[in-house]
Amino acid sequence: MSGILYGIGLGPGDPELMTLKAHRLISSAKVIAYPAPDSGESFARSIAASALPDGVREIPIIVPMRVDRFPAQEIYDRAAVEIAEVLASGQDVVTLCEGDPFFYGSFMYLFERLSDRFRIEVVPGVTSLTACAAQLRRPLTSRNDVMTVIPGPLSDDDIRSKIEAAQAVAIMKVGRHLPRLKALLAGMGLLEKAGYVERASLPEQKVHRLIDLETETAPYFSMILIYKGEEAWTLPLSYSS
Amino acid sequence: MSGILYGIGLGPGDPELMTLKAHRLISSAKVIAYPAPDSGESFARSIAASALPDGVREIPIIVPMRVDRFPAQEIYDRAAVEIAEVLASGQDVVTLCEGDPFFYGSFMYLFERLSDRFRIEVVPGVTSLTACAAQLRRPLTSRNDVMTVIPGPLSDDDIRSKIEAAQAVAIMKVGRHLPRLKALLAGMGLLEKAGYVERASLPEQKVHRLIDLETETAPYFSMILIYKGEEAWTLPLSYSS
Repeated sequence: MSGILYGIGLGPGDPELMTLKAHRLISSAKVIAYPAPDSGESFARSIAASALPDGVREIPIIVPMRVDRFPAQEIYDRAAVEIAEVLASGQDVVTLCEGDPFFYGSFMYLFERLSDRFRIEVVPGVTSLTACAAQLRRPLTSRNDVMTVIPGPLSDDDIRSKIEAAQAVAIMKVGRHLPRLKALLAGMGLLEKAGYVERASLPEQKVHRLIDLETETAPYFSMILIYKGEEAWTLPLSYSS
Repeated sequence: MSGILYGIGLGPGDPELMTLKAHRLISSAKVIAYPAPDSGESFARSIAASALPDGVREIPIIVPMRVDRFPAQEIYDRAAVEIAEVLASGQDVVTLCEGDPFFYGSFMYLFERLSDRFRIEVVPGVTSLTACAAQLRRPLTSRNDVMTVIPGPLSDDDIRSKIEAAQAVAIMKVGRHLPRLKALLAGMGLLEKAGYVERASLPEQKVHRLIDLETETAPYFSMILIYKGEEAWTLPLSYSS
């Protein structure tokens, strides 16, 4: 009988924001897989590090960092072959995933390649979306609000029309698009309603009202949250972080 | 010194989908608060039940069930007074919240009333959004997809235009709107791309392709997920649940 491929959501970065189920499955794993950069530490592995059992077999999926962040498909073709061999031998494979595996997650590349042949179980995780809202200290959305998640690389026109149609907005993957997005929101009169969070829940986290943010560059793991619905929510005037 | 008001996301229902942090804070709580119906069990309390310490003081916030689910504000006025007294005495209060406190959560009613006077910490939780996607066994969204969350009570025209503008769509609070939503999606040619999940991660969970769903009524905690982006993801032909 084949093993099960687990896709485990680890949450936004603080290891304590891992679920009990994720912790249990990782603690008893025989084989783990995770995305890793070509140099430096794997973020997913670092979140799970304290739960990893001694002697666990590790399958790092080396994804060279590129501007567009969409890795070459051959990398996942090869990883899927290696993981399939383990599964076919009857062993489970626990895949470590930042955030939630199915929410803009690279786990989908394994899922697409293996779900027709193997049993796959996804353990949902806390997403950066609600982790950022918690750190911003403002509710994300309520009642009959429409909430839209927009990738920062989209065009200004695209982003503008999505924002106009929603009450709550999250712009993800801000990165190098920060100055353009800030200008766009200023033009829409939304700068005062926008908060900025990078690396939510990690020691190096930054939280600001967007209007107070002085840097021109943002890391990939950064988000702008806007609330323009009927609730009278405002952002704190300052953040202690 | 005043106590801290914690808003703790408990996740979608399976107690194992609680975070380690939620579990730690609940296990050491002296005073908890939670929403409860006027008859029957509190869903939030039932998720946390096995973690509750002996002798914990409980402040149930009794919210009569109504069709529109937006409780009378006096209920939260009174609860805020009771909780403020505890906080002012120097004691922390741990509020148990289904899902995530800031994602369509009733915790905002306490937050609005108490955040100007007391320190509030929100612990994010797994939302029904990603919990439903995990059970549906299809990724929610990827790459530069736009994802929109739409409350089911909105009008057909409103829902149609939001769906047209997104690649990934979640319709929440399906409830009595199920037949209307199903007709709307059929008219848009999206029935084959839509999955239905109710009470995700609980023993009584139901998961179906929307096209296979034969009932005409859905509970409040139900969701329709649609994927219409570029990925070739499909729904499994059948679900074992």
